[in-house]
Amino acid sequence: MSRELRIIPVEGLPEVQEGMKLGQLIAERAKLERGDVLVISQKIISKAEGRVRRLADVEPSKEALELAKKLGKEAELVELVLSESKEILRAEQSILITETHHGFVCANAGIDASNLPADGTVCLLPTDPDASARQIRSEIPETIAVVISDSFGRAWRLGQAEVAIGCAGLAPIDDWRGRTDAQGRELTATAIAIADQIAAAADLVRIKDSGVPAALVRGLKRHLTAEDGPGAAALRRPPSEDLFR
Amino acid sequence: MSRELRIIPVEGLPEVQEGMKLGQLIAERAKLERGDVLVISQKIISKAEGRVRRLADVEPSKEALELAKKLGKEAELVELVLSESKEILRAEQSILITETHHGFVCANAGIDASNLPADGTVCLLPTDPDASARQIRSEIPETIAVVISDSFGRAWRLGQAEVAIGCAGLAPIDDWRGRTDAQGRELTATAIAIADQIAAAADLVRIKDSGVPAALVRGLKRHLTAEDGPGAAALRRPPSEDLFR
Repeated sequence: MSRELRIIPVEGLPEVQEGMKLGQLIAERAKLERGDVLVISQKIISKAEGRVRRLADVEPSKEALELAKKLGKEAELVELVLSESKEILRAEQSILITETHHGFVCANAGIDASNLPADGTVCLLPTDPDASARQIRSEIPETIAVVISDSFGRAWRLGQAEVAIGCAGLAPIDDWRGRTDAQGRELTATAIAIADQIAAAADLVRIKDSGVPAALVRGLKRHLTAEDGPGAAALRRPPSEDLFR
Repeated sequence: MSRELRIIPVEGLPEVQEGMKLGQLIAERAKLERGDVLVISQKIISKAEGRVRRLADVEPSKEALELAKKLGKEAELVELVLSESKEILRAEQSILITETHHGFVCANAGIDASNLPADGTVCLLPTDPDASARQIRSEIPETIAVVISDSFGRAWRLGQAEVAIGCAGLAPIDDWRGRTDAQGRELTATAIAIADQIAAAADLVRIKDSGVPAALVRGLKRHLTAEDGPGAAALRRPPSEDLFR
């Protein structure tokens, strides 16, 4: 059985300030229905959680100064990237790819400067995006799932695509391994990153200059769970299985 | 401005045989509207284009026999992977990652055995998926876009996500570089892989054992183009910019 899916932008949110309860704010404005997946852009989560930094307040280390010079980047930004990372994977061609303390592999540890109200500020990823998703889910009276999304580059493809950096109330992977296809043949390598595909889908209704930081995805009840579940942490490939460091 | 998006499964397609005109078949069954994006699973494109192979017909080379032994894979499958590839990137932990002749980096050169009618057969990627997308688009009277999708693994994330391996009538990348955010600040690194996100979104209405190989994504007119355009080839990162070989 298949059914139609709807993706509905959440509009009319105010400029998000530190300390705002995003779940409440969204529940007041969006027509949430039981079984919806609420996808929220990382940027407003970080703003609400006070993860915005003024570059002028950052004191670059010697390592950051050297790396910044090599890459042609601001030393203050590089210092923040290093402080948010546990390992540098690549630092070349003006590109800095690290593994964050959460275990995400991405450019600049997910730090960026777009869609922030003040010049000279940048936004860090939430400290624990799965906890952020659980918190927001708990603020919403309807039984829904929450995905927190951010755009990541990909090793072998141009352009960025949204992925889930946090989720709650959703099975992040739909694992068909051991189950069978339409012909009854075993599916050997089919584990679908549902949470990432939901993040990508929701982005299609968000236009980058429109200030629409959230969307509802309706029609995915079969993927929702009563419990918060393992979160997007379950989508991180363990370093021991990583062939591309 | 943002607007709602709908994703509608295309149901009732017959089992696809070599030589079938998929564009016509789908146009007869789906209620296509001007501006829709028709997303089609690679598997039925390959079937229609005669890209199914019987493993028993394959004669493994010495290289294939050795690699198969090392990886614990069937030598006939490895032979097909090698013949579809221009470079092996990784061959370890039972995993074979190559760059295909098209320039896609994926496991087993995109060859798989699920959802095929006969035991002992496997399905290769279409020879030129952008050409396949253009052909299907030309068979459909409505002005629409076509995306051909396949599920690829990702270097640092578990689970597969659908990506566009072919497209026509769509700008595959929405490039905001040089444009400005909601605060008028320049977006420096925002190029969104729209075609990949559309492929991922469409997969959310396809359940792997349901035999639903196509879906319509409605509400993306702003990304459609009059011309076929550069296709999904524009999403391949050139080897010179690839930091992860």
